[in-house]
This record gives sequence, structure tokens and C-alpha cells, in this order.
Amino acid sequence: MERCDVAVVGAGLAGLTTAVDLVARGHRVVVLEARERVGGRTTGRVMEDGHTVEMGGQWLGPTQDEVLALCETYGLRTYSQYVTGDNLIVRGGTVRRYRPGEPRLSRTAAAEFVRMKAELESMAAAVDLERPWESPGAREWDAVTLRTWLTDATRDDETLAFWDFLVAGLFAAESHELSLLHFLFYLASGGMLEMLLGVENGAQDRRVAGGSHRIAEAMAASLGDAVRLSSAVRAVEHGPDGVVVHHYGGVLAADRAVVALPPALAGRLRYSPALPGARDQLTQQVPMGSVIKINVLYESPFWRTSGLSGQVAAPGRPLSVTLDNTPEDSPHGVLVGFFEGAQARSAAALSADARRALALECLTEYFGPRAAEPLQYLELDWSSEEYSRGCYGGRLGTGVWTAYGPKLREPVGVVHWAGAETASVWNGYMDGAVRSGRRAAQEVHAALASTVKH
Amino acid sequence: MERCDVAVVGAGLAGLTTAVDLVARGHRVVVLEARERVGGRTTGRVMEDGHTVEMGGQWLGPTQDEVLALCETYGLRTYSQYVTGDNLIVRGGTVRRYRPGEPRLSRTAAAEFVRMKAELESMAAAVDLERPWESPGAREWDAVTLRTWLTDATRDDETLAFWDFLVAGLFAAESHELSLLHFLFYLASGGMLEMLLGVENGAQDRRVAGGSHRIAEAMAASLGDAVRLSSAVRAVEHGPDGVVVHHYGGVLAADRAVVALPPALAGRLRYSPALPGARDQLTQQVPMGSVIKINVLYESPFWRTSGLSGQVAAPGRPLSVTLDNTPEDSPHGVLVGFFEGAQARSAAALSADARRALALECLTEYFGPRAAEPLQYLELDWSSEEYSRGCYGGRLGTGVWTAYGPKLREPVGVVHWAGAETASVWNGYMDGAVRSGRRAAQEVHAALASTVKH
Repeated sequence: MERCDVAVVGAGLAGLTTAVDLVARGHRVVVLEARERVGGRTTGRVMEDGHTVEMGGQWLGPTQDEVLALCETYGLRTYSQYVTGDNLIVRGGTVRRYRPGEPRLSRTAAAEFVRMKAELESMAAAVDLERPWESPGAREWDAVTLRTWLTDATRDDETLAFWDFLVAGLFAAESHELSLLHFLFYLASGGMLEMLLGVENGAQDRRVAGGSHRIAEAMAASLGDAVRLSSAVRAVEHGPDGVVVHHYGGVLAADRAVVALPPALAGRLRYSPALPGARDQLTQQVPMGSVIKINVLYESPFWRTSGLSGQVAAPGRPLSVTLDNTPEDSPHGVLVGFFEGAQARSAAALSADARRALALECLTEYFGPRAAEPLQYLELDWSSEEYSRGCYGGRLGTGVWTAYGPKLREPVGVVHWAGAETASVWNGYMDGAVRSGRRAAQEVHAALASTVKH
Repeated sequence: MERCDVAVVGAGLAGLTTAVDLVARGHRVVVLEARERVGGRTTGRVMEDGHTVEMGGQWLGPTQDEVLALCETYGLRTYSQYVTGDNLIVRGGTVRRYRPGEPRLSRTAAAEFVRMKAELESMAAAVDLERPWESPGAREWDAVTLRTWLTDATRDDETLAFWDFLVAGLFAAESHELSLLHFLFYLASGGMLEMLLGVENGAQDRRVAGGSHRIAEAMAASLGDAVRLSSAVRAVEHGPDGVVVHHYGGVLAADRAVVALPPALAGRLRYSPALPGARDQLTQQVPMGSVIKINVLYESPFWRTSGLSGQVAAPGRPLSVTLDNTPEDSPHGVLVGFFEGAQARSAAALSADARRALALECLTEYFGPRAAEPLQYLELDWSSEEYSRGCYGGRLGTGVWTAYGPKLREPVGVVHWAGAETASVWNGYMDGAVRSGRRAAQEVHAALASTVKH
């Protein structure tokens, strides 16, 4: 049986940050990763043209200070998301151009949207990011779905459809699949709607040279053989004297463990003794979003020559969001697109061929016939990824924050919890994952420092 | 490696019924059970007076034909729940007597309640029990919580509190923790509200002599050494040629498997290949209810001599429901009580001593000072039971039925699903568990019969 000070479960950004921080404080750490790669919900794929494209979380933006600092630490350059040209919106079956800043909704819908946004953001500003369940309106906001609030607030179909489109873009879930409180928390956690949804100067502002997965790879490289791939954890024995972690590569003993998995997956490990009921029941109800991400490689970024940025908003269409995802140094063109929420579930039920055809049909509708002839079509259905089971993250439905909120982060004895879902700031984002890792490392360091060794 | 025709995971009523039915059709079956006992969410405990009392699901009622038939098959007698005397309701801080059939609410609340009940039951009558997601109102009903419907339907606090009390009694969850569609489905599945909530001639009509767990024990006895205790399943390899099930007692190969666990627990097994995304995501969002069941043994059933039945409805009180749970042949008296939903979560956070004191305080409020002096206090927090993780059953929040409904029962290759949560009729009840087992056995038998052996 191998021994170390801290066993970290999961080599996504949260787990790796935990490990790097603890190693820097002099602790011996081993990171157990189920996959044959690190990076969790960030991953890259090499396209036929030899360039790498991001198949998972990819964008960084202002105020995401922790993940930006990591890039700097590891010498990873970032570059701006391509935004030159007009964007497209699909409205009433018609594809329309608009420039960033120009209205993309009808006058009525735009006014409704602005009013509702102000109201939601004013509520969100009252949410306590550290303890959302103690916010003044928490009980009331947690008893209804976001959808209920939206339909109570407007009767305008275009406005509602636009909200549903935005919500799916944030959560890969429908507005009736999360509580109003969760939505408000998430708004506040990421700095409100424009920051979350914005491209230039928003959460989609920049990309990492070579792909965002290089952050995790750089951290893993710095940890050397402390990171063990293909070592899925089966069971965690825990007690006042430490943990014994059973994984597919062996058995690891440590003083403390940090489980850096989304709650839904953390709940699937076998713990002895079994975890308290409340912690377990939390993990029964933080489902992951449904999303299929596609990247389509073209001979050239032909949309650019038509003065288009590649950015599409298509409420109600299967592929409801696209952006230009051409790597900075590529002579070719790449469009990235997302099937989200209900659209992802429908698309997942199709054959691979039919799904590809559907995606290309959407792209052709938006960008014309050249979109029908790609060099390569790549897709990743995150729901079927055994070690993620969905993206972008775990969401909380009605009642979960107020009944189980404290259990997201509260350690159980010597077992600690990290992961983007446990973050107060930038919850659900790469930056939140990094922040959660720093917080978990601090917790563990403090606990180890206060423990008198026998 | 052991071989059989069908591997059944879980020796609750669903798994055992599956096994018994398949054995009767000539198949070789092995049942793998994680616990050291069979019965799942039914279990008994021997009290200090030597009599056995039910700590889990216990009552049977009319139209629960499948489980009643099982009792007959195994020679298990049933007897009537004790109902003689007045019931109590706690209203506005006062304990009041009422006779069954007499109004227990104020005139206003009673009228509101009747109106809402009629409206809900009329909607429920339109739910397709086999395919709730295809019911006419399904999309609309699945987008809101039951709480939203209730608060839209009345502004009367007493009525609302009474509904919340009833809902907690059915689901061990709050009305904002389930979708309206799930509530309507559940109403229809069990034969509407009076059937579900009723004692005499309702779902709480009768008890099994010796305890309801004797049903599972009798089935297990008939299966002999085909039932393996302490054999928690870790992993299920599956493919067109069969399954290989890895459990703590060894390895079992079979042509087909039936996983007879609540969805939340079924999702925690490791499947190779990994299950399709939609099935997996379903299991991420069927959380179990929160309930602590207590049985309190007294020298005598002293409430009976005061003309009380032992039945209490105490909306908003920690111990909101009690009944007389004296075994038929006992000279002593037993009161059973339930902490449900939010009350269970609060009570679980207390020390064992404080929880006992709280329960006895409630019983004393209802039944007077003699209730403070029990011979024995027994409790079971089902949320902390590793192999149930909550009771009475799994519930579906907003959006789950319409997005994932078909995945509750749809087999994945040679892996089938059973359990009370998969039942169309008496979903969540012992009878539903038995029905699900019969259905799964039929599925498997048909599949095996149609397979040409190589």
C-alpha cells in the first residue's frame, strides 16, 4: 500500500490545483485520475490539419483571475476569440445580421428583456455567494423554477424563447430544470448576465494557445509521477486517522482526501463508513447538463470573407449557438457549435450520421451552402462521457440549495470536496474549478497543520 | 466464475419477485444483495418485549392485488391497522379530536381543499400511467413544481399547510421538490388521494402478521441459496452475449441482468461499456425522500383507553404523523411516527438524544404525559442507510419525466430495470415493486425465449 499526505481524486482543474497548492506547501500528494488523460471537462483533439481544437470548456474572460494567473504561471499565452464582422440571429425562421451592440430582438422583446434582466440582476445582487441558502429571498426563490418566474414576468413568446436560449447556453439545461435561486446565484457568481454571455470582454473573451486543456497538462507535468492516470477510484475508507483509497491502479493511504469530482460523480464512490444522509442526498440531485459540442473544419473560414464573425444565436434551432473556433495559427476555418439541453437529448438519440447531417443542415442555414462541405466533423457528447456525465456543470433544481446547500463544501471528517460546482465565484467555470481547488488546499493544509502527529 | 441465466441485483420486493417469476419459468437465477438481509425498504426489528415491529414500508391496502396475492401464496396473514377511536389533528397550536369522516380543517380550508383536490384529480385522471410524458398536459405540468400549482390555487395558509403535510406524508419531500406532473402521475398510479392517504380501506388498511419484511423473507426462502447476502455489486460488464457481474462475494456470469434498485443507486454501479447518456442522466435526478421512522414501545396502548386511535395529523410539527403500531399479539403498546422531508433533515442534524427528546416531546403534546415514558425508542433514518439512501422512494423533479421518462424502464442491451420507481401502478409502494418485478421477469423471459443459443 502506497502512502502520502493527501489523496486527490480527479485530475481536472480543481484536483490539480489542489495538488499543486498542497505540494507547494510541502505536502506529499497523489492525484488519482480515472481517464487516460488529465483535464476533466477540458480536452483537445487534433484535427486532420494538425491543429488542435477544444472539445470541452475553452474560453476565459475578465475577472477570471485565478485561471488567468495559472496561464501566466505556466507560460500559456491567451489570444482573443475571433469577433470581427457581423453576428447572426435566427428569428421567425429568418437569418438576420446584426453587429455587436445592435438590437437582435424585436422592439417589444428587447424592452421586455431589458426589464426582466434588470429585475433578475437586482435579485441576484442580494444572493449571498458563500451561503446562497441564507439570502433574504432564498426560500421563495428556491421553491420555483426559473421557468415559472419567466412565464410570470412576460407573455411575449419571443422574449421567452430568447431567455430559454440564453439559459440553455449557460446551463445546457432548460429553464424549468433549475430553481430561480440557482439561476440568481449563478448570475451573481459570474458577475451578471453580460459578463457570463459576452464574447469580447465577457466569459468568451479569450482562448488558450494550443487549447485550454494545456492548463491541466502543465499542472500535471509539474506534479510529475504524483499524477496517476487510468486509476479510477472505487472506494474510500475514511476515519479520524486518515483515508485508504482503493483505485484501479492499487491502494493509497493518506491523512486526508480531496474528492474533486462533480457532486453527481462524487456520490458514486463507495465510502466506508457510508457518508451522512444529507451529503449523500445532495449528490442525488445535482444533475449535469446535456450538451454535444461539435467542431467543423473547413478549407477556409469562408464566413469571414462575407463579413461574418461566425457567431450565431438561433433560439429553438437544434444547433442554437455557433462561433468561429479557428485556432489562431490555422490556415483553415473551424466553426464550433453546441446542441444544448433538450436539443442535445434529441440529437443524442439520432444515429451519428443523422446528427452530423442535422448539424450541417443548421450550419448551411446560417452560413450558406459552403457550410455543407467540411473537411472534418468532430463531436463530443458529454453526457455519455463516463467520467463527466454531462457538461457544462451540475445544476441545482428547486429545493436543493435550501435543503442541502451547506453540504456542497462541508468536509466529512477527513474527506474534502472540490470542483467547479463548489465554487462561490465563477461557479461552473474553469476559474471556479481553480478557486475551489485553492479553497480545498487551504482547508486541508489548515487541518493537517493543526493535527498533532502520533 | 459462477454462471446462471439471469443475475438479479437487489433482494428487495422487486428483485425477489423477478427471481421467483423467472425460476418458475425454468431459468437459473442468482440474486445479489448488498445487505446482510433481504427486503430492501421493508425491515423489521425485534423490540424488547420480543415482538417485531416494522421499521420500513409496512401497510397494504385494497387494489394492491399483486402484493396481497404474494401474501396469500406464502401463507402470510394480514390484519387490520388499528383505527378504533378518535383521531387527533394539531391546528393552530391546539390538539383537537375528530372522528374519521368528520372535518379536521376549518370550514374555509376544508372547502378550498375539496376544490383543489377535485381539480388535481381531474388532471391526474388524464395522465397516461404507462407514458406520463405523453399525457396531454405533460409539458406544462412538468415545468412547474407542485408548490407553484398549490400557491397559485389558494392563498389560504391553513389549506397550503395541510397540502404540504399530505405531500410530505406521500413523498417524504416538500411540495417544491417534485414536479406537478410527478404528483399527478403518483395520484393516478395509486388510485387517487383517498386511496393513497386512507387508513381503513386505503393504502394504510392492513399489516402483515409478523411484519411486511416477511414477504421478502418468504420469497428468499423459496429461492434457497440462489439469494446471496453481503454481495454488493460493484460492476456490471454487459454485451450482446451476456453480463459479468462483479460483486463482493465473487463474479457471476449470466445471459441477462435485472437491476432492481432505486434509480439513484442503480446509477452508482460501474457499467462497462458505460451506459448511454440519457439513462445515466436520469439516475442523476431521481432523489430519494428524507424520512426518519420511529417506533415507541409503551407498557400499554394507553391512548386507546382515552378513546384515541393513535392517529395524529400535525402539519408543521416535527413528528407530523403517528399511528398505533402495536403488533396484533402484543400486550404492550406501540406508536409509530415519522419525521418527513424538511423535518427529517432537521432531525437528522440533531444528536440521537436530542432527536429522541424531540420525538417524545411531540408525542407528549399529542397524547399527554404518559407518552414521555416509553419502554423503548427505536428509530431508523433511511437517508443514512447506505443501500437505500432515502425513503419512501425516488421522486421526479421538474423536467425529469418529460426529458428522461422512457429511460426509467427501457432496457440497455441485456440489462433490465426493476424497482418500485419503475412501476406504473402503485408506483413507490410495495405493490408497485412487486409489479415491476413481474414486468421485468416477463421482459427477460421473452428476451431469453427469443434468443437462439449459440
